[in-house]
Amino acid sequence: MRLALDVMGGDHGAGPNVAGAVLAVKAIPDLTVALVGDQAQIEALLAAASAPTDRIEIVHAPQFVDMKEKPTDALRKKPDASIFRCWQMLAEGNVEGLVSAGNTGAVVVGAMKTRKFIKCIQKPGIATIMPTARGRCIIVDVGANVFPKPRHLLEYGVMGSVFARKILGIAEPTLGLMNVGEEEGKGHDLVQKTYDMFRASALRDRFVGNIEGRDIHRGTVDVVVTDGFTGNVVLKLCEGVFEFVMNLVNQDVLGALDTEKDKGTAAVKGLLGKYHYSAFGGAPLLGVDGVCIICHGSSKERAIANAIGVAATGVREKVNDAIVAEVEALPKEE
Amino acid sequence: MRLALDVMGGDHGAGPNVAGAVLAVKAIPDLTVALVGDQAQIEALLAAASAPTDRIEIVHAPQFVDMKEKPTDALRKKPDASIFRCWQMLAEGNVEGLVSAGNTGAVVVGAMKTRKFIKCIQKPGIATIMPTARGRCIIVDVGANVFPKPRHLLEYGVMGSVFARKILGIAEPTLGLMNVGEEEGKGHDLVQKTYDMFRASALRDRFVGNIEGRDIHRGTVDVVVTDGFTGNVVLKLCEGVFEFVMNLVNQDVLGALDTEKDKGTAAVKGLLGKYHYSAFGGAPLLGVDGVCIICHGSSKERAIANAIGVAATGVREKVNDAIVAEVEALPKEE
Repeated sequence: MRLALDVMGGDHGAGPNVAGAVLAVKAIPDLTVALVGDQAQIEALLAAASAPTDRIEIVHAPQFVDMKEKPTDALRKKPDASIFRCWQMLAEGNVEGLVSAGNTGAVVVGAMKTRKFIKCIQKPGIATIMPTARGRCIIVDVGANVFPKPRHLLEYGVMGSVFARKILGIAEPTLGLMNVGEEEGKGHDLVQKTYDMFRASALRDRFVGNIEGRDIHRGTVDVVVTDGFTGNVVLKLCEGVFEFVMNLVNQDVLGALDTEKDKGTAAVKGLLGKYHYSAFGGAPLLGVDGVCIICHGSSKERAIANAIGVAATGVREKVNDAIVAEVEALPKEE
Repeated sequence: MRLALDVMGGDHGAGPNVAGAVLAVKAIPDLTVALVGDQAQIEALLAAASAPTDRIEIVHAPQFVDMKEKPTDALRKKPDASIFRCWQMLAEGNVEGLVSAGNTGAVVVGAMKTRKFIKCIQKPGIATIMPTARGRCIIVDVGANVFPKPRHLLEYGVMGSVFARKILGIAEPTLGLMNVGEEEGKGHDLVQKTYDMFRASALRDRFVGNIEGRDIHRGTVDVVVTDGFTGNVVLKLCEGVFEFVMNLVNQDVLGALDTEKDKGTAAVKGLLGKYHYSAFGGAPLLGVDGVCIICHGSSKERAIANAIGVAATGVREKVNDAIVAEVEALPKEE
């Protein structure tokens, strides 16, 4: 199996990307990673690492997209940037998947440019994995498609459900539609129409209906379906609330301790590590014909290695074949 | 000053409502509260309390709207329900404001029915006050208007800003538009058009532009403007994440302590109290000609008393006169 890594993506440059790839190829015996980026930098980093070099390749890309750059501008001005080279390799069948911690918009724009989507899927959606009181859930979409149609959301439900089964190991994933109340008929036109489509689909038995914001972390469902605008706000808000509450805990709870402050500090540190995004291996861009995993910009080697691992599992488990089969079973669009 | 309280609203029935009203009239010397609900129940509760009865009145309402009832159905079937009687009293000028911990949808439906809105305001919006790393912020709308027009959001910005100044005491409140990224041009049509309207308005100097989910709790702005769909998800998600993280802290951090477990437990309890919604006195329905405060369904007497206090301050500070002046200063709609 062969995957491409956008070595230039992320807040920390090539270092953690190359280190993460080395970890991944050591852990996965049938994996080859193509490191796409500045050849000189990659060679220097590899020389310092003890990597199984027969399964690590270098693909030189002379440019890269900055984290703050406008994605469509980047595509026009830097067609040879590392992330776009990764997409080209996927489109040409040189790799089966790609991983990037770079500019998320550029990753999505690259996908839209090559248009290498799964048969029957109209628009890709970004899924993210979130910890809950009952384990984990997956939320689709968190930002690829800020003004979707009902059909897109239905397809996100199918894809999220297949991902939950194949990657998270949940046998019969339940689905919920993010809304402002549980009752049928709540919300705006988009969610009302989407609700009806789910009820009429093969997913109906696992579709619990509308859910509210507080249901996500209660673990009410395994797959949360939402538009990319709401989903993106949700994703970043969770980060913000977690940060806010943990600061309060540091200050007020640890601050109240005296002789057991060390024990408390270690427990807080454990919590932060356990619920850090890096533990969840990145966010898949579902709907791409191939596997694409988007990592948080601040990912370090552990997060990159986990993301490569998730991509490898996606390829091995033939997630996309299952998606095609399930989308084909949906009612045809009118 | 005279306010109406929907005594039948909330998860706990008349008890905490009557007790909260008694607390409020004791604290505010020029306040009279009309208790709207079942006369027999109210009389029994008042008889047991030592209330200044010359400033507490009873208005009998033979029906009430259940928390789970569909608001439009309730309005049709129970026109004499306590919340609708409160609205009628406001519309007839018998009271200057109303407070309800009942079915939020019914409160909003009552407002839409009487249509007693502030001059120049097209649609009311619910504002909520949220703790942040820098103090407090106000978010409008959190559920009254799930599919607003750009003009509505501009008006929410004006109203939120006036509320922040008059009630929260923030001299020059800054405003931000909830979006999926900070850069201009981000997001869907609604936020793009709203962004341009803010930039062209008298609020331009205090409008910091687009903000993201994580900015809310960082306290990046004092007033967060968003559509009622996103805002409602945000509100309930915050509740869910807070609950989730505090459960983890209880289990993992307090669980790690031994001799200082009591100190830690007291600190966690302190945190929960400090950041409990009841400390923030309910959510104003901005845009109503009068003052309307919506309380959380599970409000107890302290939360009800705080909400009545906020309503009284809103009346005393003439929040609506300031809103009219500022909305009239906006560019006229095309």
